[in-house]
Amino acid sequence: MSSIDNVTAAEYLGDALPFVDRIREIIEVIQLFEDFEVDELEGLARYMRVYRAPAGTEIIHEGDEGDFMLLLLDGSVEIVKKDVRGLPQIVGSAGPGKTLGEMSLIDGEPRFASCVALSTVEVAVLDREGLSRIIAEEPSIGVKLLMELLMLLNQRLRNITGQLMDCQEARRSRIR
Amino acid sequence: MSSIDNVTAAEYLGDALPFVDRIREIIEVIQLFEDFEVDELEGLARYMRVYRAPAGTEIIHEGDEGDFMLLLLDGSVEIVKKDVRGLPQIVGSAGPGKTLGEMSLIDGEPRFASCVALSTVEVAVLDREGLSRIIAEEPSIGVKLLMELLMLLNQRLRNITGQLMDCQEARRSRIR
Repeated sequence: MSSIDNVTAAEYLGDALPFVDRIREIIEVIQLFEDFEVDELEGLARYMRVYRAPAGTEIIHEGDEGDFMLLLLDGSVEIVKKDVRGLPQIVGSAGPGKTLGEMSLIDGEPRFASCVALSTVEVAVLDREGLSRIIAEEPSIGVKLLMELLMLLNQRLRNITGQLMDCQEARRSRIR
Repeated sequence: MSSIDNVTAAEYLGDALPFVDRIREIIEVIQLFEDFEVDELEGLARYMRVYRAPAGTEIIHEGDEGDFMLLLLDGSVEIVKKDVRGLPQIVGSAGPGKTLGEMSLIDGEPRFASCVALSTVEVAVLDREGLSRIIAEEPSIGVKLLMELLMLLNQRLRNITGQLMDCQEARRSRIR
């Protein structure tokens, strides 16, 4: 299991409690936490650890088993995935307020893509142990987080299923 | 919001507690509940309501807002979705142990497809109110259910994303 502490270029800045104001600043784009009150954010922040890493750092490596998700507090990352020939392709980018890696947080399966810092980045990390502790120690915040994760995955699933149906339809109409 | 009680052909059989043995019989194919112990299943069953409906009943109607998921206890259903021309296409089928409609349970968004009974079916229904009550009254079971729902959606998301990438790759190689 690859933890954030294996990213040797990442510097540990402590728990996320001092960053709650920053989280509130960018909250409008944090779909995951949009329904959280300030005291709930503070409760959650105690379970998240903040790291800073320079441009070029690969924060998440495709194929690694991983057990954490990231909230981008500052800076941006490029999302890179190998194509069928093994060549890295840029499939997207993400800036402050975006969350990355939720799927591996939940199921521990290999990372779907890599994330490379485009500038100095600050990230708040929630790992599986942190999630378990929130659920045990702050169940109302834990349940809210799980519900928000469900909403996020659900929305992504609806979106990707729509894209798949469009793609299949386009293929069928070319074949006809 | 369309509840199961709007399906007029469906006959209410009470809560799911008397059906726990049936659920245990089919548990191997119920991915959603595979990590539940018997007493947890019994706890959950108190919040689910069981209905029987004859062949031909449309249990879930595409486009409806819905707030419940179904566990198929007996019988099977056909999954039907309208294509771009509005013509119904059979996109799959499901038998005992399959769950249907989890996405609308979570987000209340319109149903993605319709489910039509191919034979007499018995279904155990969990609606949003039931989910809220489980979380409030039996938080450990509630959290387990949310985690299992997350695993289920996650696996589906990985699967569909893989299919989308294959489809896009196939389109690109045809266009080249």
